[in-house]
Amino acid sequence: MKQLKKVNLNQIKVKDSFWSPVQELVIDEMIPYQEKVFKDEIPDVEKSHVLANLRIAAGMEQGEFYGMVFQDSDLAKWLEGVAYSLVIRPDKDLEQRADAVIDIIEKAQQPDGYLNTYFTIKEPEHRWQNLLECHELYCAGHMMEAAAAYYEATGKDKFLRAMERMADHIGGRFGTDKERGIPGHQEIELGLMRLYYATGKEKYLKLAKYFIDERGQNPDYFKEERQKRDWVHFNMDPENTFYNQSFAPVRLQETAEGHSVRAVYMYTAMADIAGQTDDRELYDACVHLWDNITGKRMYLTGGIGSTVDGEAFTKDYDLPNDMAYAETCASIGLIFFAKKMLDIEPSGKYADVLEQALYNGVLSGMQMDGKKFFYVNPLEVNPGISGELFGYKHVLPKRQGWYTCACCPPNLARLLTSLGQYAWSEGEDAVYSHLFLGGEFDLDKAFIRVESSYPWKGQAVYHVEGKQKSAFKIAIRIPAWAQNLNVLLNGEKIDTDSCRKDGYCYLERVWGKSDTLEISFDMRIRRIYANTEVREDAGCAAFMRGPFVYCFEGVDNGQLHSLRISTDRKAEESACGEGLFKGMTLLKVPGMRMEGSRQLYSETAPFAKPVTLTAIPYFAWGNRGVNQMKVWMLEK
Amino acid sequence: MKQLKKVNLNQIKVKDSFWSPVQELVIDEMIPYQEKVFKDEIPDVEKSHVLANLRIAAGMEQGEFYGMVFQDSDLAKWLEGVAYSLVIRPDKDLEQRADAVIDIIEKAQQPDGYLNTYFTIKEPEHRWQNLLECHELYCAGHMMEAAAAYYEATGKDKFLRAMERMADHIGGRFGTDKERGIPGHQEIELGLMRLYYATGKEKYLKLAKYFIDERGQNPDYFKEERQKRDWVHFNMDPENTFYNQSFAPVRLQETAEGHSVRAVYMYTAMADIAGQTDDRELYDACVHLWDNITGKRMYLTGGIGSTVDGEAFTKDYDLPNDMAYAETCASIGLIFFAKKMLDIEPSGKYADVLEQALYNGVLSGMQMDGKKFFYVNPLEVNPGISGELFGYKHVLPKRQGWYTCACCPPNLARLLTSLGQYAWSEGEDAVYSHLFLGGEFDLDKAFIRVESSYPWKGQAVYHVEGKQKSAFKIAIRIPAWAQNLNVLLNGEKIDTDSCRKDGYCYLERVWGKSDTLEISFDMRIRRIYANTEVREDAGCAAFMRGPFVYCFEGVDNGQLHSLRISTDRKAEESACGEGLFKGMTLLKVPGMRMEGSRQLYSETAPFAKPVTLTAIPYFAWGNRGVNQMKVWMLEK
Repeated sequence: MKQLKKVNLNQIKVKDSFWSPVQELVIDEMIPYQEKVFKDEIPDVEKSHVLANLRIAAGMEQGEFYGMVFQDSDLAKWLEGVAYSLVIRPDKDLEQRADAVIDIIEKAQQPDGYLNTYFTIKEPEHRWQNLLECHELYCAGHMMEAAAAYYEATGKDKFLRAMERMADHIGGRFGTDKERGIPGHQEIELGLMRLYYATGKEKYLKLAKYFIDERGQNPDYFKEERQKRDWVHFNMDPENTFYNQSFAPVRLQETAEGHSVRAVYMYTAMADIAGQTDDRELYDACVHLWDNITGKRMYLTGGIGSTVDGEAFTKDYDLPNDMAYAETCASIGLIFFAKKMLDIEPSGKYADVLEQALYNGVLSGMQMDGKKFFYVNPLEVNPGISGELFGYKHVLPKRQGWYTCACCPPNLARLLTSLGQYAWSEGEDAVYSHLFLGGEFDLDKAFIRVESSYPWKGQAVYHVEGKQKSAFKIAIRIPAWAQNLNVLLNGEKIDTDSCRKDGYCYLERVWGKSDTLEISFDMRIRRIYANTEVREDAGCAAFMRGPFVYCFEGVDNGQLHSLRISTDRKAEESACGEGLFKGMTLLKVPGMRMEGSRQLYSETAPFAKPVTLTAIPYFAWGNRGVNQMKVWMLEK
Repeated sequence: MKQLKKVNLNQIKVKDSFWSPVQELVIDEMIPYQEKVFKDEIPDVEKSHVLANLRIAAGMEQGEFYGMVFQDSDLAKWLEGVAYSLVIRPDKDLEQRADAVIDIIEKAQQPDGYLNTYFTIKEPEHRWQNLLECHELYCAGHMMEAAAAYYEATGKDKFLRAMERMADHIGGRFGTDKERGIPGHQEIELGLMRLYYATGKEKYLKLAKYFIDERGQNPDYFKEERQKRDWVHFNMDPENTFYNQSFAPVRLQETAEGHSVRAVYMYTAMADIAGQTDDRELYDACVHLWDNITGKRMYLTGGIGSTVDGEAFTKDYDLPNDMAYAETCASIGLIFFAKKMLDIEPSGKYADVLEQALYNGVLSGMQMDGKKFFYVNPLEVNPGISGELFGYKHVLPKRQGWYTCACCPPNLARLLTSLGQYAWSEGEDAVYSHLFLGGEFDLDKAFIRVESSYPWKGQAVYHVEGKQKSAFKIAIRIPAWAQNLNVLLNGEKIDTDSCRKDGYCYLERVWGKSDTLEISFDMRIRRIYANTEVREDAGCAAFMRGPFVYCFEGVDNGQLHSLRISTDRKAEESACGEGLFKGMTLLKVPGMRMEGSRQLYSETAPFAKPVTLTAIPYFAWGNRGVNQMKVWMLEK
């Protein structure tokens, strides 16, 4: 078991007709917008106060802490995104502002390395007493990720060194032979792994592995912690060990349980550590958990978490569309997990889901102007019900400018600016292309320039400039749904049957200075059915084309629940030349509207009036005002 | 506008193949069981303590109050049921025990007439300060209903006089020229009307009318009440005026809002007072409210209340099956309301719904052994989800022996023992048969003996013995769904087209000493469709036969959500000769089971495997262990 090497961002230049505009939007709009939010300069949105907290903790101004106990992490994720953005597009001004924030962070750090504005300002006497609720390790993990990213992006190590001091402070406190402790919200493991990669210091890998292995060894850990203190923060139930995945040692966990973001962050760390330490047992646990999520507990959009109650997984095949949680952060975490699994076993089963989450459940988290965000990504919305009535109150029908718990918006910023890292991995004898991302990739074995018409067309050209004299493989992931795959190597057709394995097309040779690989496949509209165990999708179909899930909105189609899609007539593509959806492929779906008695109940069967429905990519829903939305539509 | 006269229970002897066994079950099992619960003699069920509370308040024993602030009302409803049962089947022993309870009630009553064990035992200083939350008027209303019933059943007036003293105490306190007050939970209005009918004293009618007319005059009433006191009981939001229907004067209310039991109890009183006082405006409000409920906010089972949040109505056409509230008490209240509307305007639109609620949403509240009860009556249950997960926690998949809030079980006892009262009304020139209830009915104008094969067959014979020399009408309600109606008068066929009006078949003549009316109609299986505005029933059909709604259970059919019912093949009757369902007509429904890919999502359309489904009457569900249940099934 050998973990593939990730490709660093400075080896990557994204030049993609779909993703470059998204990254520009993040850099031009989202990152500056979030900076203004952090400075409390945006009116009429939830107050952040995160920068003020930091300045107060640093002794630079007077004031009270405001916000969630994990408020620091919003800024950390944003800084991580800023770091990535500086690689994409250097910006002296932004870098100076980031440096200034880092200066404050360093000032807010305590002499012993401790960093957390909540405890420093409000309850210094309570440090490290409430790992269940208080997110100190969580915030530390995000700060470490940001610090590593900033170091990789700028070469400046001030933040990294500060976070090493924090990591050492943590490592000095927790361990098998020290205080036994585990985080209430996993993330420190990911932060420590980033620190390990950035510094090469094995102690951080060991500490990350400690937190993973310690988890669930004593399922009463949080209960005992609670008994030791006379205060609570959120008053969480310390016996709800499913919520934070401490119900059993992680290697024995077989189903995805509890808070879905905590879960996938942990699985990501498990997979990373398994890959780094060649730990087959830990990897096997990851495979079980992956299969449970993607085989039984995931929305078509790559959303996870079926209930608002604990923002959690529920049971196999329980996937209510109109009550979904499907937090943006959870889909982002699923992408993290998928990439780590891919790096151990390059298989389409991971890459396809990575893509599915990316183009749907993640991208839907962002308004097309980059300044509004969904926390919850439902697959059905009914204005007047969603966001209003019991059971549906969490399902807001429109994106918000900010949230009290603002984990998702800066998570989007850091994911989208680091997208290039998900496009490639490099192994000993192969390079792996996971996404048809257009751009220039300066890999160890080759310089590869990709011209991609993906995701709207199944077409990409890889211009390869080999850097070594020996043969190696270029493995290009071909989505499981792709049909009529055609691969031309320097214009000559390749027998693709013999080169396809586990969702990748492997081409081995000594690559010359200007080889060209042309990939094409049909990008047909797929009609998708859910497993018949999924109650909420019974009788329904959904549409996908390429990586996109489609949805129906009221603004195009009128009242949605009396619509049916025709089983015997095919949907067709409809290029949308103008306006908001310029460049996107929309669908025209033959269907019918059921019209029946005006009585509440009657013996009159509704009759079907033929209509043509319009479907748009799911990620783009909710950009034309509050209206009804549905992914799964009844067939007739 | 002239209100029809209700027929007293002592004019009625129910002898019905369906209902007599139900009444026997109530008398033999339910009433004794509930008596034991009240004495805290049933192990492993929620404790009642209601009799102990009463003895403590009466100074007969020491102890603490236990239970809800409205605990007294459980006993009141039971006593009302006991009264009715004594008419059906005299029982000296039971009557003595009831007398003994009434003696304690009288002892618990305070010298000023006040009766409420909670306040007498726990917070005598807080009497009448918290009408919003504390149910003093509600409990008083139930005690008055019980007292009137006991007087009518036994001729004993001790309880009645006691409750007159309570009514006078209330009337001395509240009124237009006294303290302005309205109940937080309507019921006192119904109790006062019963007292008015039992005593003929108009002051009780006036006081009932005061409470109705006062409601909503000052929508800030409860807010102001809250400001006057420094204590709360449940900490209800006094500004949630929809919850208790105090948001507007009742005459201006057009949609059914808030807590559904509060609502229909109030509408019942409104209709009764409108009928008694010839108040057209009040009646018109009732018609609006009726039409809104039955046209837009009622489940097929006659259940009302779409959400657990406030046990309330939500919005037009919002009728989730698996999250339904549909409280047993609310359907009982809907029957009360229907009967009062019927007595003003005998129309099938009221009688059909009365029957629909009775045979379905009410009867389902009771286990077939008479000793377990549903509070919530869902139209879909999924074990593992229902009763367990957020949103569904209130939807228990099995009936319980008792509840902390035990309003429903004794409400069933009093409704089912007084069923005869819903079967007939008497007008100036007509008698009205609302239900095809078998039995002997000693009406003012005639003695009528009904032999009924209803509800399983559309057949009933009315043997009429006229008591007066002048002509009068016998009006027999014919359900709207009845087809091929055949009416024979002394063996001769009547032209039913000319005699049918508003759901009743009117036959006018001078009735002799032994006239015979034979009614018959087809009792076919009806396939029912919901209005296409009802999201949750889209694509589905349900089955009814006669007054019964049918449902599908897992125990007969396996996993339900992958089943479809065939659009092109008819359901058939299947008499069930044996066992639990002896005598019932079950349905065999041609359908199919969808079997598809084992993947969570795939392009493989599930294929249909023909199967024959079994449907049972909805009221009988949940009598064979915990299993899946559905009323609305997808068609294919």
